[in-house]
Amino acid sequence: MTSRKGSPSLGDHAPRIIAVDTYDIRFPTSREMDGSDAMNPDPDYSAAYLVLRTDAGDGLEGHGFTFTIGRGNEVQVAAIEALRPHLLGRPVAELCADPGSVSRVLIGDSQLRWLGPEKGVMHMAIGAAVNAVWDLAAKRAGKPLWQLLADADPAWLVSQVDFRYLSDALTREDALELLRAGRHGAEERRAELLRRGYPAYTTSPGWLGYDDEKLFRLAEQAVADGFTQIKLKVGADLHDDVRRMRTARAAVGPDIRVAIDANQRWGVGESVEWVTALAEFDPYWIEEPTSPDDILGHAAVRRAVAPVRVATGEHVQNRIVFKQLLQAGAIDVLQMDAARVGGVNENLAILLLAAKFGVPVCPHAGGVGLCELVQHLSMFDYVALSGTVEDRVIEYVDHLHEHFTDPVVIESGHYAAPTSPGFSAQMLPESIAEFTFPGGAFWAADLASSRAEVPA
Amino acid sequence: MTSRKGSPSLGDHAPRIIAVDTYDIRFPTSREMDGSDAMNPDPDYSAAYLVLRTDAGDGLEGHGFTFTIGRGNEVQVAAIEALRPHLLGRPVAELCADPGSVSRVLIGDSQLRWLGPEKGVMHMAIGAAVNAVWDLAAKRAGKPLWQLLADADPAWLVSQVDFRYLSDALTREDALELLRAGRHGAEERRAELLRRGYPAYTTSPGWLGYDDEKLFRLAEQAVADGFTQIKLKVGADLHDDVRRMRTARAAVGPDIRVAIDANQRWGVGESVEWVTALAEFDPYWIEEPTSPDDILGHAAVRRAVAPVRVATGEHVQNRIVFKQLLQAGAIDVLQMDAARVGGVNENLAILLLAAKFGVPVCPHAGGVGLCELVQHLSMFDYVALSGTVEDRVIEYVDHLHEHFTDPVVIESGHYAAPTSPGFSAQMLPESIAEFTFPGGAFWAADLASSRAEVPA
Repeated sequence: MTSRKGSPSLGDHAPRIIAVDTYDIRFPTSREMDGSDAMNPDPDYSAAYLVLRTDAGDGLEGHGFTFTIGRGNEVQVAAIEALRPHLLGRPVAELCADPGSVSRVLIGDSQLRWLGPEKGVMHMAIGAAVNAVWDLAAKRAGKPLWQLLADADPAWLVSQVDFRYLSDALTREDALELLRAGRHGAEERRAELLRRGYPAYTTSPGWLGYDDEKLFRLAEQAVADGFTQIKLKVGADLHDDVRRMRTARAAVGPDIRVAIDANQRWGVGESVEWVTALAEFDPYWIEEPTSPDDILGHAAVRRAVAPVRVATGEHVQNRIVFKQLLQAGAIDVLQMDAARVGGVNENLAILLLAAKFGVPVCPHAGGVGLCELVQHLSMFDYVALSGTVEDRVIEYVDHLHEHFTDPVVIESGHYAAPTSPGFSAQMLPESIAEFTFPGGAFWAADLASSRAEVPA
Repeated sequence: MTSRKGSPSLGDHAPRIIAVDTYDIRFPTSREMDGSDAMNPDPDYSAAYLVLRTDAGDGLEGHGFTFTIGRGNEVQVAAIEALRPHLLGRPVAELCADPGSVSRVLIGDSQLRWLGPEKGVMHMAIGAAVNAVWDLAAKRAGKPLWQLLADADPAWLVSQVDFRYLSDALTREDALELLRAGRHGAEERRAELLRRGYPAYTTSPGWLGYDDEKLFRLAEQAVADGFTQIKLKVGADLHDDVRRMRTARAAVGPDIRVAIDANQRWGVGESVEWVTALAEFDPYWIEEPTSPDDILGHAAVRRAVAPVRVATGEHVQNRIVFKQLLQAGAIDVLQMDAARVGGVNENLAILLLAAKFGVPVCPHAGGVGLCELVQHLSMFDYVALSGTVEDRVIEYVDHLHEHFTDPVVIESGHYAAPTSPGFSAQMLPESIAEFTFPGGAFWAADLASSRAEVPA
């Protein structure tokens, strides 16, 4: 196959996908307690990463990944590799003209479907592959993904959505109407987005492993940097949380929103007790109070803790669960994640559901590259679907951006709109080489030094 | 490590787990259209299989597996292998005295948890490993698993259950009360079980790929064999289904229950229309009308199609979704699966939830070895929890039992109670050798012959 590279006119066919390269990339973030919370004390932020290579001869590749937190990243890579036969040999132009066709083929493989369906390792692998196709499509179109989506014909966008299991809440006709309505004023919003960016909030001050001094200092700094919302991890110990919440509120004053995040630590009763105990500090939302699978549980918590808002989504497995969270009135804030569900196509469905129900989307980000990806989806939503940034913020965490070719830019508490073509999904080759597990330079050295510490 | 085998007294420790062997086993079932349905036209029934070996020197091993339908079985094997570090070196006696401790460690690995949580590939891998521990525990106790569970102290059984995310529907105290109440009359029911077995129903006549003549003949035969319920796959084409349902009803007469199974083919509206169109043939239940994730959808279907019962469960990912199906009044029949959730421990939670809500459990089975496993759970439930077989039947499919050392025995439409120690999970070594993919004798020959067919 290598012989085809650089020979786009060779043979009787249009350019095709000639390779699906995969990488197990892990960053040793657990050593600094970055990213620590009540359920994830020591994450090593990782990516099960793929590159679609073509014989188009234009140097363009499609990059995509699933974010994981360390162990098991190799399982996620194996899942991506299981998709390879569906991708290899596909004509690039057709693929990029209709990424939904890839999504349908991958989700529709009946044997692979058994491993979900549409959830967990296999579904996240599909999401990574689908996102890689969108990255390639946007690069070929010469546009950042948000702009490709915002420029697209509403009927074509609707054709990219799988309405199976949604039609009791959102029909094809509903979607078309929402997207057509989203066109009104889109040009003004695009200009506004390019001028001001999209509002962000920051989780960087509030990791559970940070001491109070560091929390206070980083919370003050966040306000100085222009953020109007911060977030604190809670849920390990109530006494600690009361003290930390008091510290955070003292640092930021009464006008900055302070969200709290329990990372699924509690049951329904415990959620209500804990949030009630922290209510005096005016938490803006409680995020992931309980299992992401517990739709009725979230609805019960929401009824009990109002006016504190209930937020979830980073672990919500697919559009069907989001549909029900909205139908049940279980959430005030929908926290879409770019790399948990089946990629851009399913996130279009989720954005449409949120628009239909009038619930603001405040995406989950952080990890590795989640900020880079999800900004595109929110920016599309602002320009051409919901048409507003009111009560909408994208999470921002200041980790690992240096490994990307088109890293996010934060200015005055806003994400600057990306202008490079693609989905901002591409890592630097030297980062991939260094942090590939276990053979990359960092891990090889790490393994050698830990061996040296063990007495013979 | 091999040197330790057969030397139980060697060293200063009790016997431990010394190996976790894994196998990718696939049977070419798609070639006969066995197992074909509206969503799974060509399954190759497969098992991601593990064997726990110890240095106890007693020859006992723990066997467990995840059932899959072919492609992706290697991903499932990779997920089981990711659990190996948590199992290797664990003391066998402690492990078998408290399988819940293994379940907690595996589910509690925060990095692996990110890949679910508690759903899909990673969770099924945990189920396979946990079930292997139970197989070993029952063999060491010299009892079939159903009897080990039925003999166990209620407080110990409760200690085996993870109540996280359940306590708004089922508390530890509820569980203890249910299990204590289940003791009344347990001895009589045990004797009855050993005498009569546990009622079964058969899916073998109703695969979607069978023609009408075969359907009629197999349905007649099922009644002659003593079954009082059969099941038909539906959902591909309504005209065909009307004809097939008429054929089935003609074959079995009015008194045999005929369940129908759409394997998630429909949305809510379509489910209602389709079931309504088949109502004249008196379907006993509609199984998997829509996505297993759609709790509110099942509740809506149930309200619309009564008195036809709604059943689901074979793809329900965990106890949290079952809890909500019960809370929402979404199902009449709970179809537990032995190898989809996190193993025996989570299935104890699910049986307790069903008992609390008074909903009958009619397990999913078939595939590879699912009948062998799940019979133990239903028999425990009958003897020592729900205390009844009224409206309860275990699915039976006549596939692939010949590959097991302790295959199920069906007599007059009933599962005979197994008496061999263990969880009936163990495959014959020669079956493993022949059907290991892709290197086993069958697949190697298959590959060679398909190569031979391709012109050079």
